Amino acid sequence: MTAVSPFAPKSFPKLPPIDGVRLGGVAAGVKYRGRLDLFMAELDPGTVVAGTLTRSLTRSAPVDWCAQVLKTGTARAILVNAGNANAFTGRAGMDGVQAMVDAATEAVGCKRKDVLVASTGVIGVKLPGDRISKAVPKLHRGLKADGWAKAAQAIMTTDTYPKGASATCEIGGVPVTIAGFAKGSGMIAPDMATMLAFLFTDAKIPKDVLQKLTAKAVDKSFNCMTVDSDTSTSDTLILAATGKAGNKAPKKASDKALKGFRQALEAVMTDLAIQVAKDGEGAQKFITIDVAGAASDKAARRIGLSIANSPLVKTAIAGEDANWGRIVMAVGKAGERADRDRLTVAVGGVTIAEKGEGVPDYDEAPVAEHLKGREIKIDVDVGVGRGKARVWTCDLTHGYIDINADYRT
Amino acid sequence: MTAVSPFAPKSFPKLPPIDGVRLGGVAAGVKYRGRLDLFMAELDPGTVVAGTLTRSLTRSAPVDWCAQVLKTGTARAILVNAGNANAFTGRAGMDGVQAMVDAATEAVGCKRKDVLVASTGVIGVKLPGDRISKAVPKLHRGLKADGWAKAAQAIMTTDTYPKGASATCEIGGVPVTIAGFAKGSGMIAPDMATMLAFLFTDAKIPKDVLQKLTAKAVDKSFNCMTVDSDTSTSDTLILAATGKAGNKAPKKASDKALKGFRQALEAVMTDLAIQVAKDGEGAQKFITIDVAGAASDKAARRIGLSIANSPLVKTAIAGEDANWGRIVMAVGKAGERADRDRLTVAVGGVTIAEKGEGVPDYDEAPVAEHLKGREIKIDVDVGVGRGKARVWTCDLTHGYIDINADYRT
Repeated sequence: MTAVSPFAPKSFPKLPPIDGVRLGGVAAGVKYRGRLDLFMAELDPGTVVAGTLTRSLTRSAPVDWCAQVLKTGTARAILVNAGNANAFTGRAGMDGVQAMVDAATEAVGCKRKDVLVASTGVIGVKLPGDRISKAVPKLHRGLKADGWAKAAQAIMTTDTYPKGASATCEIGGVPVTIAGFAKGSGMIAPDMATMLAFLFTDAKIPKDVLQKLTAKAVDKSFNCMTVDSDTSTSDTLILAATGKAGNKAPKKASDKALKGFRQALEAVMTDLAIQVAKDGEGAQKFITIDVAGAASDKAARRIGLSIANSPLVKTAIAGEDANWGRIVMAVGKAGERADRDRLTVAVGGVTIAEKGEGVPDYDEAPVAEHLKGREIKIDVDVGVGRGKARVWTCDLTHGYIDINADYRT
Repeated sequence: MTAVSPFAPKSFPKLPPIDGVRLGGVAAGVKYRGRLDLFMAELDPGTVVAGTLTRSLTRSAPVDWCAQVLKTGTARAILVNAGNANAFTGRAGMDGVQAMVDAATEAVGCKRKDVLVASTGVIGVKLPGDRISKAVPKLHRGLKADGWAKAAQAIMTTDTYPKGASATCEIGGVPVTIAGFAKGSGMIAPDMATMLAFLFTDAKIPKDVLQKLTAKAVDKSFNCMTVDSDTSTSDTLILAATGKAGNKAPKKASDKALKGFRQALEAVMTDLAIQVAKDGEGAQKFITIDVAGAASDKAARRIGLSIANSPLVKTAIAGEDANWGRIVMAVGKAGERADRDRLTVAVGGVTIAEKGEGVPDYDEAPVAEHLKGREIKIDVDVGVGRGKARVWTCDLTHGYIDINADYRT
């Protein structure tokens, strides 16, 4: 077993109930023994759903299914297993999805197209759908408005702690709540969403507006985070809005009344994305990279991700080494506009390279002290424009090799 | 100190002399103590040169200089140090280059624009040009036609063995020889050439033709190899043609008389590229990936590199685990056309996944046996076209973390 992440919180955060949502988790024995591995949420009639899915061209059968359900924009249940991704399992893949959908349909008393499903774990092993079918009735009977902790635990794979976050805001003066949870923690370079994240709100928001708000917040949060540059076949993020808060439904994503909601949604997603990076496989240090002065915001993110995905930058930070030359290298290979002689690099707030060279006799002591800590800050100013982005990642340690050289056995 | 690569040959290969080339190496103490770190080659008047340089936007001052010299298409000397990359050293970068160029100019008695220079090692540290200037006269006096081994050793950084290769062929019935050497072995994802490679031939080939032949061979060899996805600021490959063989000069790269030369050049570069991958930092296994059935050759290479750069694929192989789901994942994230349900994956010649799922009850024994070996073969058929490519890499092990978490100190 691997040690728990040094960033693991003392306990799972207290998440508020969302009117219209009941949830929980059980041990179905899909792969793991003696631990929760099946999560279910029941959503009241009228719940609107939005989501983002992996852009992988080898995506899993559950992702194919979710894409269909998301088109309808409504759902009554979410059923998710951990330990088996049901990806690249051929025709059996859709059989596994159907087993899950049937079990949820029967328990909730809804239509098949009202059930969202997701699977995470090993790729290429047939899903034992019977184990899931057998576990669903008991799981369904135990669903509760405060079932957050069990739900968040039931979707974990190599995660070392469950990840939850919540926020409150107002829409047109009406209080609204958002709460959700996510899992990582390897094969994490989301191209649309993270491995798995489920968010819930009592806000009343029409389907198309909810989808726009979701996509935008994902772009600013999960899509700015990477553990190991490997994009999963199963990335799925779902936001379910029950509409129970009683706010006046906004007509557009740009509606002024949604300002607080937009901020709250991005805050919850960012919180979860940061928790995923902090629980990256083998992570000992959490790294925040701010890129400014790029040709565009998109260019800034690409440069930030180039730094965040560089094994040489990540191993240098694991070794507490202010090897800023590797940051310069990663900017140079990003494929975005850059000018070596205008580039500025700071670590821990101390500028250590600027105008194409290292700062002569910069004070290494505070930088060395900063690198000994758990939370590492890198600032890069590319010096060619006004684009900016913030990107999160973790270091690359022996723990990552330990976990991944021996994952299936 | 890190252990020597399991792929290290018993001894440096015997390379033939190239008429018009004298070379060698000395210990100049640029950074390392008590080992060769300065390589020089003197080229007879009339030598034509071609080369490829890193596409990094934060490339080093020596690369800037080489770009100018390569425009002229001729050179009389090559001077290269290891231990200091002279990259991101601001104005001092060009001072360092000038010190090297001046020293070589004086020793050889040529013009400044006839000197190619390269530097490899740590980024962002000023080059001690005086140590180089002081060492050049002795180095120059010791240059010999058979100085290959010393030359190849003098450009090593974290390499655990020197890498050399040669081939002979004919141009219009006249025998011609090609010989050269290269170094790796981290920050290796060549976008134009590898870190450093120097090749020599006695063939008579005009400048423009030589450049085309060089670029094409690099594209098929070094540009199909990766250690860690990180593209260097210093990548430099030079091919010097002395013209002493006395063959009739070809007018075009597509000249039929060049068929043997094209093959021999690609063979030498491929040999060197494979040696670099085999000496990748921490490498315990060498991986050859053949991609077929892609939309184009370019798409096939991109898919191959996506597999070769995946930390999850590389750690699975380090762990001798036939985790083919990670190969499927890497194909899906490559950004090239793919169809999950037409994809075929074989490891060690055994098809283990096809038509969108794992082959039921495939014989794991020969695959497990293959994975215990040093040389790993992966075959992927994307099933959408006729594009193909071969890519080389190594596994990702604890050794890589050991070397790179503590490189500067």
